[in-house]
Parts: sequence; structure tokens; C-alpha cells
Amino acid sequence: MKLAQIIEKTGGELHPPCEKIPDITITGIAPVDKASPGELTFQTNPRYAGKVASTKATAIFLGKPTDQTTVLQIIHPNPYAAMAMTAQMFFTRTHTFQGQSDLAFIHPEAQVDPEATLYPFAYIDKGARVGSGSVLYPHTYLGENSSVGKNTVLYPGVSVMYDCEIGNSCLIHSGCVIGADGFGFAPDKSGNVKIPQVAKAIIEDDVELQAGCTIDRGALEDTIVGSGTKLDDQVLIAHGVQLGKNCLIAGQGAIAGSTKIGDRFIMAGCGAIGPSLTVASDVLVGPKAGINAPIEKSGEYHGFPAIPARQWRKETVSQKRLPDLIKQVQSLQKRIEELENR
Amino acid sequence: MKLAQIIEKTGGELHPPCEKIPDITITGIAPVDKASPGELTFQTNPRYAGKVASTKATAIFLGKPTDQTTVLQIIHPNPYAAMAMTAQMFFTRTHTFQGQSDLAFIHPEAQVDPEATLYPFAYIDKGARVGSGSVLYPHTYLGENSSVGKNTVLYPGVSVMYDCEIGNSCLIHSGCVIGADGFGFAPDKSGNVKIPQVAKAIIEDDVELQAGCTIDRGALEDTIVGSGTKLDDQVLIAHGVQLGKNCLIAGQGAIAGSTKIGDRFIMAGCGAIGPSLTVASDVLVGPKAGINAPIEKSGEYHGFPAIPARQWRKETVSQKRLPDLIKQVQSLQKRIEELENR
Amino acid sequence: MKLAQIIEKTGGELHPPCEKIPDITITGIAPVDKASPGELTFQTNPRYAGKVASTKATAIFLGKPTDQTTVLQIIHPNPYAAMAMTAQMFFTRTHTFQGQSDLAFIHPEAQVDPEATLYPFAYIDKGARVGSGSVLYPHTYLGENSSVGKNTVLYPGVSVMYDCEIGNSCLIHSGCVIGADGFGFAPDKSGNVKIPQVAKAIIEDDVELQAGCTIDRGALEDTIVGSGTKLDDQVLIAHGVQLGKNCLIAGQGAIAGSTKIGDRFIMAGCGAIGPSLTVASDVLVGPKAGINAPIEKSGEYHGFPAIPARQWRKETVSQKRLPDLIKQVQSLQKRIEELENR
Repeated sequence: MKLAQIIEKTGGELHPPCEKIPDITITGIAPVDKASPGELTFQTNPRYAGKVASTKATAIFLGKPTDQTTVLQIIHPNPYAAMAMTAQMFFTRTHTFQGQSDLAFIHPEAQVDPEATLYPFAYIDKGARVGSGSVLYPHTYLGENSSVGKNTVLYPGVSVMYDCEIGNSCLIHSGCVIGADGFGFAPDKSGNVKIPQVAKAIIEDDVELQAGCTIDRGALEDTIVGSGTKLDDQVLIAHGVQLGKNCLIAGQGAIAGSTKIGDRFIMAGCGAIGPSLTVASDVLVGPKAGINAPIEKSGEYHGFPAIPARQWRKETVSQKRLPDLIKQVQSLQKRIEELENR
Repeated sequence: MKLAQIIEKTGGELHPPCEKIPDITITGIAPVDKASPGELTFQTNPRYAGKVASTKATAIFLGKPTDQTTVLQIIHPNPYAAMAMTAQMFFTRTHTFQGQSDLAFIHPEAQVDPEATLYPFAYIDKGARVGSGSVLYPHTYLGENSSVGKNTVLYPGVSVMYDCEIGNSCLIHSGCVIGADGFGFAPDKSGNVKIPQVAKAIIEDDVELQAGCTIDRGALEDTIVGSGTKLDDQVLIAHGVQLGKNCLIAGQGAIAGSTKIGDRFIMAGCGAIGPSLTVASDVLVGPKAGINAPIEKSGEYHGFPAIPARQWRKETVSQKRLPDLIKQVQSLQKRIEELENR
Repeated sequence: MKLAQIIEKTGGELHPPCEKIPDITITGIAPVDKASPGELTFQTNPRYAGKVASTKATAIFLGKPTDQTTVLQIIHPNPYAAMAMTAQMFFTRTHTFQGQSDLAFIHPEAQVDPEATLYPFAYIDKGARVGSGSVLYPHTYLGENSSVGKNTVLYPGVSVMYDCEIGNSCLIHSGCVIGADGFGFAPDKSGNVKIPQVAKAIIEDDVELQAGCTIDRGALEDTIVGSGTKLDDQVLIAHGVQLGKNCLIAGQGAIAGSTKIGDRFIMAGCGAIGPSLTVASDVLVGPKAGINAPIEKSGEYHGFPAIPARQWRKETVSQKRLPDLIKQVQSLQKRIEELENR
């Protein structure tokens, strides 16, 4: 791939500046200490400047120019993201099936764009719509009146229930279930009476749902996963949740019903947010943490019930001193008794 | 829908009483402050009595008669449940497929009732039985000698392994797996020797399993999910568990092997119960809690290891005071030293 | 089944020793207090020696010879494992389908051994390979260039993405997803830039993955699940994890990206290990525990952040005393004030 193509896509600038990008072919990408001539590498952390000096790469993404290397420098505000974009150019995948298989089931009232791909055993239900460039793998199910936008991929075994909307350029990995009923019951002496779940699940553009996520439909208010948001495996988004844009939720995270979360929310593995809460934008939740109260200020929260990170670290450290503290207090008690008996 | 039909189903009584239910058509249901003329609403919380006074609904479910409104009152011991029942009357769904598809696979030795619906790509294995009114969506699998009762729905991608039983009027959402092997191994120097899992998984009547639940089969004792019980997404019921009737388990809950749980058990999100325990009826477990000892008394339990709610709240509050307590003890120690040196 | 066959497989020795194994037929297996004549039983725990004396079984696996019973004794270093092996001989399952169904989709460039079984609705993609004796149930998907070894079973609804490897004699239960993308994104002002996940997921021999597990493919380094390892339902193995041999991970466990774990690792339910850590062999992690630092020493760890078991128990006990401790300190403070005012 030509260096010029890479720079055009990632937007970096050569250092030292030159009028015309040299006609160099980049053969691949690699870590800074493993790159060979012909390859492109990157460096974010100034601590590893030494590695830059000795790299054998042909070019390097850097945040700031350096005089430690004669390698071609591409200065970019976010070398890590630039490298990710470049990696995407090298590792594009094509699908093994083209067209719309006779072994797929397409309801006569469904609308599938001629440029969409349907693998065998895909099922497109009544009134469902699939946009151009989208690909539905085997054993996918697209329910009644649900829609998939353009250039979206549903990997094998994805189920999308009725009346749901999936945007453009989404990746929905195997085992995801979108738009199943939320958990709503009115306990009664005769048992638990089901509350119909009649609102939609909406997945906006550029969303990625990794394997085994469940995104429930709303009861009365739609469930929304905002554009650019990425969910790791086995994440649970309950009914009526509104999750903002460009969020990142790591594996086994859960957001309970009707909770509204701002943009750029980040949650580490196994974190959970309780029901009917409001969480500001730019909040970061630690691993295994549990939020059970609204969060109005952006920042980092840990523990359960979750508290600001600094306070949590203090309490966690204190916790370790507790067995000693108990002994210390016992000893003080004795000394006080002695003083009292003087 | 006629008001008379609603009252017949929900069982409320008009206030003021009248000999014959007036011939009124109810056009829909809505929250008390959003309802329009023609609609039915409800109110449970006496705190919001003011909203009742100003509602524009045509009729309202109430726990007790009020003189704050001229709207038609339907007095019901559980207005919330009555509203849920009414909502079910308005939002009944029909299935897009009727009959038994030629694209479904039915083993010659399977027994499928003529009134059951099989979507394309459903697979009914040898000796399996499907009752009348039941619906198996695409990509469902019903294993050897397993049975599904009447009026039960298996949504897309549900797998039921061999020798299992699913009752009547159940809803099994996409991605559920029923009757897969439980986790039983005998560690040996050659590795982990598998203990055959030869008992069943039994799902009784009126059970709802939401997306992605896994209900393992038993090793020697059957796994049982009691009638009327409802499980949220991604709940795990291990081998040999016996879960009572009318239980509610929220998302990502887990019950470990051989544990026996009574009726009306309620567990909040991400709760877990350890193996081989007995839990009384009418127990409520808090979010992210973990039970690791038997529970003989009904009541509310929180934390991990879980303890009675009141005690847990006390400990949680104390926890926050710990960093200050450490400082306080240090200061007392100094004052004692000073006293000792007097 | 002949006793001689059982002894040949399990490797025990008769007591009292005899030159030739008597020609006895074993009709089944049962717990020591429930076994009938003709059946085989076992006893591990010396505490229950009394039960051995009164068992009605025809033969018994024991760790050490006893004179408490006249029942035929088979002395075995691991009676529990011997019993499990015997149970396997009694409970072998056959599959209801033979051969390769016309309703399965086999890509022309796939290689399926003639001795492999493909149920209807299985999908074998381009370049994929299936070894002899392996069985792919309905709604399974084997991705491009992925391979399944010999005598491995993929239960209904399993998806294996491209370029992955599954070994011999594995059991992969319904709903598992192997080789979906790991969670790698470079946050940028334009959003979260996806880092291509181009390495494999490798499942070695004799691995069992129970229902709903997700094993992600690697970003640059392969994800590996070592031979003999068994995962319970809903376990998450993230990208680039290397999990050793003969490990046991209970339900809903999670291992975050790039973590390397030794052999015979055991984790109780809902445990989690953070990213980019190294964990020694022979480590045991307690229920709901969370490891967030490397573990160099084998042993038992509990809590979150996890600490050695003994220390955790001490802190947990201390925790309960905290509310009283606070009161005690307040009382000491008063007594000190009084002393100071003397």
C-alpha cells in the first residue's frame, strides 16, 4: 500500500515536511521493536523513545517530531488511532458469499436491497427491510417490520425481533439478541402479570455489539444505543435504557431498565448500573463496580455502591488495615483502663 | 375494546357501583397524566392523588374509591396488575407464519400437533413432541424426546437438548439454551473426568425465560424452574437447581448447582447463590449480592457474603467512616501516651 | 456391563486380590446408600464408612481396603474419578442423525471427512475442515478456513468464526461463539477507531465449553484455551488470553484481554481476572472474586481486589465488627476526655 494512501486516510503530516509524499510502498504494520524495513510502526509513550531510535521500520506515527531517528516520521495527534486506521486498510475482510441465497427465507412482503447479501438460512420476516451493502450471515433472524441500514453485518446466529431499527455500518456479532422483551411484571396474588413490552430497540449508526449481547426492547420508551458505541461480549442493555454516543462497555456489563447515560461513557468489565438512573457524559466506571445512585458529575467511579475513585481507593486501603485497627483499639482500651485505675 | 370486556378479565368493580357496566369503548391505555379521553389509566401511589384529579382519561383503575375525580373508577386490589392485564388485551401479537413449514425439519418419529406452528429452519428431533398452539421460530432446536406443551413460544435461536420438558404457555426468548450439560467433573491426575449429566431440565407452565438464559440439565436430580417464574436476560440456572413458583430473577443472576429455592424468590440484577444451599420462600436478594450460606428465614439479603439488609446497610455506612476512624484512633493513641506520661 | 471391562477402563485393583476378575455383570451405578444388588457404587469420604458397611451394591470403588463390608472392593487412588469414568460407560449417547444432510450447506472448497456428521442447517464455510467422527448439530456455523478436529461435537447454534482451530474430542455446547472480534478500540475525537482483530482463537483437545460461552479471537496474539480445560456456562475469554491445561472455570467467569494463566487454574462462579496479567499454575479463585494484579504464587485467592484466602477471611470477619468498633472508639474517646479533665 502506498504511503500516500495511508496519510490521506489517517491525516498525519510528514516530518520533516516535504512538498510531495515520497513514492514509498508500505508492506505491513508492526510494533516498534519488531518492525522490519518496509513496515510502518507507531509510538505513543515518550517513555519508550529509546525504541524509536532503534526501530527498523520504514515509517513511524509519532505525536511529536523527534531527532532520535532517521526513519520517516508521520506526526499525528493520536498515533494509536492512526495506527488502528492503517491496520484497517491492511486487514479488510471480504465475505465468502455474494448475492441472496435461495436457501435464505425472504418473506414476500420484506424489502431487501439488491446490493445486500443474504447467506443461506437467513430469515427475513414480513415487512423487514435490509439496506444495500449489508450482510446477513447464516442463522440470522430479522423480525417483522425491523430494519437494517446500509453496510451493516449481522454475524451468524443474531436475532432481531419485531419493529426494531439497526443503523448503518454496524457490526453485530454472533449470539446477539436485539429487541427481546424487557423484564416487566406486576406481581399479583395469582402470579407475575406480564407488562407488554411495546416500544422498540434502536441501534444507531457505527455501533458494534460483540458476541452474546442482549439489547431488550422498551416497555413504553424505546431502548437506544447511541451511534459509535461499542459493547464487548455478553453486555446486557435492559428495556428503555438510553445509552449515549461513542460509549465503550467492557465484557459482562449491565445497564438496568430506564437508565439514561450520556456520551463517551466507559465501563470496565463486569460493571453494572441500576435502574431508572441518570448518568452524566464522560463518566468512567471501574471493574465490577455497581452504580446505584444518579451521577451528575463526570469522573471515575469505583466499588459497590460506587463512589468517586479517589474515595474508593482510600476506603480500600483502610479496609486492609481493619484487622490491625481492631487490635490497636483493644490495646488502647487496656491502657485507658490502667490510666483510669491509677 | 369494550369496558365490560376489560372488567371481566381484570375483575375490578365500578365505583360508584352500577347494575350494568356502561357501554363504553376504551381506545387505549396511558399514564395518568398523559391519558386522553377514551383511554384507561391507573394509579397506585396515593402520593400522586393530585394527578388523578386532573386526568383526562375516561376510566381509571384505583385501589380505593376517591371523590377527587368524576372519571369512571374501577376499584381493584392491585391496580398495577389490572393495568398490565389490560395492556395485554391491547397488545396481543400474532405470528407472521402459520402452519408447519416445508423448510422445517421434522424427524419422522417426532409428534407435532397439527395446531402447532413451525417456522422454516426449526428442527424437531427424534421422539420430540410439540403441543397445540405452540410456535417454534426459525433456528429453534427441540432435542430427542423433549417436549413442548401447549401455547408455548420458542423464539429464534432457542436450543432445547434431549429429554427435557417445557410446559404450557411459556415464552422462551432468543438465545436461551435449555438442558445443556451441567458443570460436573472429577479432577484426576490425567485431567478432569466428566461426570455424565443424565437428569432432565424441566420448565413448568407459565414460565418466561428472557434472552440468553442457560438452564442446565441435572446430573442425577432434575433441574426444575417452577411455574410462573420469570427470568430476565442472561440468567444461569445450574444443574439440579430447584427453583420455586412465581420467582423473579433479574439480569445476569446465577444459581449454582443443586441449590433448592422456595417460592416467590426475587433477586435483583447480577445476584448469585452458591451451590448446594437451601433458600426459604419469600426471600429477596439485593443487586450484586452473593448468598453463600443457607437462608431459613424469609426477608431481604444484601452484600457478599450476603447478610440481612439492615445489617448490610449498617456495615456499608460504617465502611465509609473507616478512613476517618483510623485517624481518630491515631489521635486517641497520642492522647493516651500524653496521659501516660503525665 | 462386565466388571472386567470397568476395571480395564478405570484401572482399579480388586480386594482381596484375585488372579482372574470374576465374571460379574454390573447393571448400573448408584450412590452408596441407594445402590441395589447388581450395581456399582463408590465412597471417597472416610467419614461415611458406616454407609459402606450397609450398602447393598455388588461392588464398590474405595480409596483403601476395608473389612467393614463383604462387598467386592475395587481399590482406586481416586474413587470419584473412577466412578465418573464408569458412569461414562453406562451413559454414552448416540446422535439421532448419521451422515451429511442434503440440508446442510457445505461450501465447495470445504473439506468434510466422510466419517463426520452434519445435521440439517449446519453451515460449513469456504476452506473449513471437519475431521472424522465429529458432529455438527443444526444451526452450527463453521467459518472460513476454520477447522474442527476428530470426534468433536458442536451442539445446536454454535458459531465458529474464520481462521479458528478446534481440537479433537471437544464438546462445544449450544450458544457458544468462538473467534468473534475482541474488544479493541482506539478512542479518537471522531469516535472509537476499531483495531482489527486478526489473530485466531484456538481450542485445544478435550476441551468442553458449556452453554453460551464466548471465546474471542486475538488482536495480534492468538487466544488459546488449553487442552483438558472445561468452562461452565456463560464464561467469557477475551482476546489474546492464554488459558492453561486442565483448568475449570465456573459459570459467568471472565478473563480479560491478554492475560496468561497457568495450568489447573480453578475459578468459582462469577469470578473475573483483569487484563494483561500473569497468573501462576495451581491458583484457585473464589466466587465473585476479582483479580487485578499478577499472581506469582499458587494458592487460593478471594475478594475484590482479590487477596490470599486467609487474609480475606480475616478482613471479612473484621468487617462485621466495624459498626461496633466505631461505637467502641467513641466510648474510648469520652473516657480519654474524662481522664484528661481529671
